[in-house]
Amino acid sequence: MDQHNSTAILLLSCPDRIGLVSRISHFIFERQGNILDLDEHVDTGSGMFFIRVAWDMDGFSISSEEIEDAFRPLAREFRADWKIHLSHEKPRTAIFVSKYEHCLQELLWRHGTGELAMEIPLIVSNHKDLETLAAQYNIPFHVFPISPENKLEQERRELSLLKENRVDTVVLARYMQVLTSQLVDAFPGRIINIHHSFLPAFSGGNPYRQAFERGVKIIGATSHYVTGELDEGPIIEQDIIRISHKDTLKNLIRKGRDLERIVLTRAVSSHIEHRVLVNGRKTIVFS
Amino acid sequence: MDQHNSTAILLLSCPDRIGLVSRISHFIFERQGNILDLDEHVDTGSGMFFIRVAWDMDGFSISSEEIEDAFRPLAREFRADWKIHLSHEKPRTAIFVSKYEHCLQELLWRHGTGELAMEIPLIVSNHKDLETLAAQYNIPFHVFPISPENKLEQERRELSLLKENRVDTVVLARYMQVLTSQLVDAFPGRIINIHHSFLPAFSGGNPYRQAFERGVKIIGATSHYVTGELDEGPIIEQDIIRISHKDTLKNLIRKGRDLERIVLTRAVSSHIEHRVLVNGRKTIVFS
Amino acid sequence: MDQHNSTAILLLSCPDRIGLVSRISHFIFERQGNILDLDEHVDTGSGMFFIRVAWDMDGFSISSEEIEDAFRPLAREFRADWKIHLSHEKPRTAIFVSKYEHCLQELLWRHGTGELAMEIPLIVSNHKDLETLAAQYNIPFHVFPISPENKLEQERRELSLLKENRVDTVVLARYMQVLTSQLVDAFPGRIINIHHSFLPAFSGGNPYRQAFERGVKIIGATSHYVTGELDEGPIIEQDIIRISHKDTLKNLIRKGRDLERIVLTRAVSSHIEHRVLVNGRKTIVFS
Amino acid sequence: MDQHNSTAILLLSCPDRIGLVSRISHFIFERQGNILDLDEHVDTGSGMFFIRVAWDMDGFSISSEEIEDAFRPLAREFRADWKIHLSHEKPRTAIFVSKYEHCLQELLWRHGTGELAMEIPLIVSNHKDLETLAAQYNIPFHVFPISPENKLEQERRELSLLKENRVDTVVLARYMQVLTSQLVDAFPGRIINIHHSFLPAFSGGNPYRQAFERGVKIIGATSHYVTGELDEGPIIEQDIIRISHKDTLKNLIRKGRDLERIVLTRAVSSHIEHRVLVNGRKTIVFS
Repeated sequence: MDQHNSTAILLLSCPDRIGLVSRISHFIFERQGNILDLDEHVDTGSGMFFIRVAWDMDGFSISSEEIEDAFRPLAREFRADWKIHLSHEKPRTAIFVSKYEHCLQELLWRHGTGELAMEIPLIVSNHKDLETLAAQYNIPFHVFPISPENKLEQERRELSLLKENRVDTVVLARYMQVLTSQLVDAFPGRIINIHHSFLPAFSGGNPYRQAFERGVKIIGATSHYVTGELDEGPIIEQDIIRISHKDTLKNLIRKGRDLERIVLTRAVSSHIEHRVLVNGRKTIVFS
Repeated sequence: MDQHNSTAILLLSCPDRIGLVSRISHFIFERQGNILDLDEHVDTGSGMFFIRVAWDMDGFSISSEEIEDAFRPLAREFRADWKIHLSHEKPRTAIFVSKYEHCLQELLWRHGTGELAMEIPLIVSNHKDLETLAAQYNIPFHVFPISPENKLEQERRELSLLKENRVDTVVLARYMQVLTSQLVDAFPGRIINIHHSFLPAFSGGNPYRQAFERGVKIIGATSHYVTGELDEGPIIEQDIIRISHKDTLKNLIRKGRDLERIVLTRAVSSHIEHRVLVNGRKTIVFS
Repeated sequence: MDQHNSTAILLLSCPDRIGLVSRISHFIFERQGNILDLDEHVDTGSGMFFIRVAWDMDGFSISSEEIEDAFRPLAREFRADWKIHLSHEKPRTAIFVSKYEHCLQELLWRHGTGELAMEIPLIVSNHKDLETLAAQYNIPFHVFPISPENKLEQERRELSLLKENRVDTVVLARYMQVLTSQLVDAFPGRIINIHHSFLPAFSGGNPYRQAFERGVKIIGATSHYVTGELDEGPIIEQDIIRISHKDTLKNLIRKGRDLERIVLTRAVSSHIEHRVLVNGRKTIVFS
Repeated sequence: MDQHNSTAILLLSCPDRIGLVSRISHFIFERQGNILDLDEHVDTGSGMFFIRVAWDMDGFSISSEEIEDAFRPLAREFRADWKIHLSHEKPRTAIFVSKYEHCLQELLWRHGTGELAMEIPLIVSNHKDLETLAAQYNIPFHVFPISPENKLEQERRELSLLKENRVDTVVLARYMQVLTSQLVDAFPGRIINIHHSFLPAFSGGNPYRQAFERGVKIIGATSHYVTGELDEGPIIEQDIIRISHKDTLKNLIRKGRDLERIVLTRAVSSHIEHRVLVNGRKTIVFS
């Protein structure tokens, strides 16, 4: 695609101060950029400012290669964390799965319809079960069986594979292994997990059984970034579904599956459209 | 009201066996009762059967005073827990409050419109703040200030007052004291609490602050029966509301208030209409 | 499957009178049937009684072939509309499609996971587009191109094909043709359509565009039985999704697709589990 | 309140062009204003730009009296519709009611808790029924009985009263009269109505009965600005609630009441916080 039909998206966070919106929008305006979308948020607790601005690169007076250098002085002055994304550079996303197909199926389907603007160069699994599904969509499928003994070694090989494929985002689509820090640390704020409960309730194993036994009237699913602490990463999206005494555990798992695929897809969608900023343990998700 | 315009409601649970629906409905039919509503549920896990049947007492061949004696042999044969309620005998409900008015306001309002078919002979509080609100609705308001030293003694006085007023149901409408076992044990399965979180998440103190700090995208409220274990009683009703990074803690508390009043009202409504059966740690709520 | 592991389901409606539940449940009890689930409803407006009873055929004293004859006298006395279904006889369902794949995809997927207990002997379409999808699931795909001139003739051929395949239920999964009365009348209360709006709002063509132009804040989808009057058949299921000024028409259509597949699937699921009774222009859907 | 603790809010719409955000935010920045919140939207269909900016007047280099004059040249250049509101100048809102109390009750309650930052100088009604409720909150209550003969004359008197009280917003809280153009035209985009259905479905009279008879599975409520065409004004907020065959018409009306009070309150809240911009037949509601 010709990059001049592209959109640039700035994601930035910095300590709040006067003039931030004005100076950032002026940076774009003075280079003939037309702002398509702007969202900002001030977290009064931490005194931090967060912004997402998207502008049309068509007619922009400098090329996409030059933007970062041009913006750097401003960012430095603001002591900002920042990144500029170009819409024609689709995030390269690896999907990790085990045996459950519903989340993978949903992602591949929506990817196929063009709803998820990302590349999926490969799927990684510790089991062979979903190989056929991957094949239907012509996506390379790599199996790395995991045991306690070989886990570190297998992850090292996965990591190499991800690097070879220039992967920048990892989606755990009901991947039933806890990642070690070598993988987590390699993709800070770029590994998305789906947990099959309304976190923080029912973290850990068998959340549907826990929910069933506690007799809750609503079950949930939670998509979050993976950090070093299990189930503790910043939450991107959650949703719930109502259940009743009529629902058996099996039913509840079935309803939960529908929830998981919806919640994970929404989180992935927000992430690849560069709508998510991490604020400590929390996220800002611009709609 | 003339009891012959009344409805009888049987709530029964017993070990499942063949013929329960047939024999219970036959008991009603052979006495010329017209069944208005029947719901049943079998918990295959525990092998227990639960039923709620409502029938018209108009034309019923025995009087409401005679029903229990007539039904007892059947119940004994089924080894059942059971109770027969008459719709013209409205549950006598005491409401316990502290300083928050929203739940009390909601209950009194709906009671006033006739939606909640119960008597409210009195309101109990450990603070004076809501006296005026109670007065607006002409309901006696009793203040029992609570300190660690006088708690047992004050509860004893409350208990006497409840007995004097023939109270059968207690609603804790954001009552900010943990009840001791003397009160809990006096009303088994008949004390309803509203917890301002999506239990089991954020049990204990300050759940909104916990939710805010965890960065959840959805907050909840839970109404449950009070048992000896804090926040562990059988859940009657839950609901949730979506929040975002824009919501301050104050906002979140405000949204939570709306949720609390709705969830508590629904739970109270189900209880006083005799739609709730307790099944161990869980409830069956017939709709 | 051995029919003795089967469940029998009675769907019945008749004028309300005393003793219906008792006599129906007694019919089952005296033949050693264990009731698994019973739901009933009285429509006080029309004075009609509706019931769904499911019982275990294991241990039942008469065979599934004999049930209807045994029950007929009772049904006649009650002047009832009724039908007894056996769970091992799965409804034979034909799916009609045009070019949109999402509803078909959803049905096939859930059918594949075992959630929809039906047979799908064939798919009918007026276009070739979804042939590949049908092939992936190994389901015969029949194309009948429709023009105003050949419509009656093509429908006649479709009808023959449905009869040959002993189809009892037809699902219109975004089939973009209005059926004529010869097809509608051949499957009374057994053709299920998905309309892409919150009926009765935006009936007719282009409902998403209508919704977009009216500036509604919520869009819906409606699944209903097909009758002679367009979009006027009894509604089985509806659901909605929130939209905002940010949603373009394209976005709205995308969100609507998700809604359609969910709503249609729920309606089909209720129908094939024999949970739906038609009450004039309305339905009773037992949960 | 000291206006220097106040917030200024600009609502503006104009044809889209390059540099709008930059120049508007620069106008604020160069006068030492700290932007607290900024939302913008481009309607690509109509080519119109919409913005809401809130900034702190504390430290702003010009007084609140001088802002409009200072901003006028920019607005003129942009050919904009615009208005600057100051948070310490609370909208003066008249509430019109008839006999239903639930919407009025909700508004007064939330106003009392400080959630609705508006003044309510008076309540207008065509019936006396809600006088006591108004008195409880110490708000003047004016009765103008309406008949076909006196309608124009009574409205004229109402209009005078509104002007005397410097009312800028009118809320029809289940006011059961259709306003004539003399009143509608006097408050363009400033009269908010609650319609007890999911518009455009069931416009006109008796929407709950219409919904009941159609057998819908979901009912709704719609809050909209009043224009010359009945039920056709721009929609501000809608919500829905699920119903079933169990719901009688009476039940449905009761559930609808809960919906109406929530939907109207949200719409009023958005309006008085200056979050709503009208875009032809539609609204933009910034969250």
